[in-house]
Amino acid sequence: MTATIHTIRPEQPSLNPLMTLVAGGLNCVNRVILDRMQSPVALIPELAGHLIAGGGKRLRPMLTLGCAAALDYQGERHHKLAAAVEFIHTATLLHDDVVDGSDLRRGRKTANIIWGNEASVLVGDFLFSRAFELMVEDGSLKTLKILSNASAVIAEGEVAQLTAQRVIDTGEDRYLHIIQAKTAALFAAACQIAAVVAESGQQTEDAFESYGRNLGIAFQLVDDAIDYISDAGTMGKDIGDDFRDGKVTLPVILAYARGDERARKFWKQAMAGRANGDAELQEAIERLHATDAIADTKARARLYGSRAIDALALVPASRARAALVETVEFAIQRAY
Amino acid sequence: MTATIHTIRPEQPSLNPLMTLVAGGLNCVNRVILDRMQSPVALIPELAGHLIAGGGKRLRPMLTLGCAAALDYQGERHHKLAAAVEFIHTATLLHDDVVDGSDLRRGRKTANIIWGNEASVLVGDFLFSRAFELMVEDGSLKTLKILSNASAVIAEGEVAQLTAQRVIDTGEDRYLHIIQAKTAALFAAACQIAAVVAESGQQTEDAFESYGRNLGIAFQLVDDAIDYISDAGTMGKDIGDDFRDGKVTLPVILAYARGDERARKFWKQAMAGRANGDAELQEAIERLHATDAIADTKARARLYGSRAIDALALVPASRARAALVETVEFAIQRAY
Repeated sequence: MTATIHTIRPEQPSLNPLMTLVAGGLNCVNRVILDRMQSPVALIPELAGHLIAGGGKRLRPMLTLGCAAALDYQGERHHKLAAAVEFIHTATLLHDDVVDGSDLRRGRKTANIIWGNEASVLVGDFLFSRAFELMVEDGSLKTLKILSNASAVIAEGEVAQLTAQRVIDTGEDRYLHIIQAKTAALFAAACQIAAVVAESGQQTEDAFESYGRNLGIAFQLVDDAIDYISDAGTMGKDIGDDFRDGKVTLPVILAYARGDERARKFWKQAMAGRANGDAELQEAIERLHATDAIADTKARARLYGSRAIDALALVPASRARAALVETVEFAIQRAY
Repeated sequence: MTATIHTIRPEQPSLNPLMTLVAGGLNCVNRVILDRMQSPVALIPELAGHLIAGGGKRLRPMLTLGCAAALDYQGERHHKLAAAVEFIHTATLLHDDVVDGSDLRRGRKTANIIWGNEASVLVGDFLFSRAFELMVEDGSLKTLKILSNASAVIAEGEVAQLTAQRVIDTGEDRYLHIIQAKTAALFAAACQIAAVVAESGQQTEDAFESYGRNLGIAFQLVDDAIDYISDAGTMGKDIGDDFRDGKVTLPVILAYARGDERARKFWKQAMAGRANGDAELQEAIERLHATDAIADTKARARLYGSRAIDALALVPASRARAALVETVEFAIQRAY
């Protein structure tokens, strides 16, 4: 397996087709983002800029743009809305890093480490409010409804995740419910609003909502797996973050469910934070592989990925549609 | 002076007229609040309920209701909007207490002390999102614009306050700008939206916006004074909180500006957190009185209070108008 890591595999799916497709639109979105994160209070653009300029993929706004392209939408309304989606996402990241006490994101120091938790909380609130201002400017109650609902669902999911933290008997169903809320809801909204601005009708809206939601779930499951197989160099985050934080993600849920009494004791201790050092992380990885927990987390991700692709069935073949399909394949296969 | 404290003074202005006026409407608002703070994630209603049920005056929703009554509005749209205003306010309080590391509010333990900072941040986000859902349900882009703008201004004001913390040479103008944003903007929006739902025209909207804004400034200035003259029994917050947190409020700004070199050194040390124990608090209070800083903070509050009352000039005399006027007088005189 390790021999393939350094092999160049040009056939590997990537984000490139989506990035090329939306490059022009993304420039417009970036201009809105830069313009609207300004404030006479200097700390706001400084802190927001650290995160917004700091190597984020802009995946969610790219999805809004890509979906709009797949529907051949020619207007510009989606630029402000895509910026609003990115602001909601950024606000969530700022608050997440405070909640998790994180010190690294995308390989750089987190804002809470540089400017303190207080500033991260308040600048997050500012970006969140700015997101709503952008949506109000767009003037569609329908997109406002979709995005305000997604925001409430995300916050609800974040609280649910907090209450599940260190709770080893979080079941797979409950976990899927949490990641649908905290991750997939914004992916779904980002894609659905493209169909709304393109005025493509309810069936197409539903299809794009489903594409985004299933892609979001797949994306999160792969992230969960990567936390036990990647390294800081490739992902910009340390391996074992979830393990040390006592985050009961799907790999752990599967390994715990399939483990014997000794294994369950190990996971209980580790998730409770009583035995979660480097030696235990190594043991955790071995246990995850021994129970096929990583492989099966990826298999679940593939399942949601196929649903995302199937949701696009009614979309006519085009360069944009192909880019959306490859984005799903990239999301799933980046863990290999 | 102390002899008057225990004297019953029935002529003292109070919130009673406003409370009596809006009692029926407030029941409706409270039902919306209780209904919309629910969630299958039990921690959300638990934590939100602690703050929402915990002795808050509901001043902002009462203002929306009182202003609507002064305009003889007969509909029910303002119930959801008043609930949204209270949710925004509650979200701000939750985040404020995290930022300030507060342990007491209204005489009770703060949510961050009971459930942790993480939960307070995330439940605040949830309430904030719910506020937007309520506004979207109301369906008026005009109220959405007013309240989303107010939210951004509040967050901006909170960050500005954070950057001014412990900065002894914050001038009076800068300070007024901060409290206009962090406190008065929501008062203004709460009053203005009543004129919007009553469809009273731009001039009336502006008048109520001005009423709320000036009342909000007066309210905050009196709060600032009270922090140096009240006690935990009457206010539910400890005297000297701002002093210990290094919050450079108007009383301190005035005392610093008017002080000699020794006084300025004292305030610098105190606000920097290097000398802010009980003995220094006592000295601070003496210095504030010696420079008339408390009296003049109250005088400023009276000025903004008269502006608030004058803003109601075009509103016909009624029980509701009288209640709005007495609310201003209460806000100003509670510091005596």
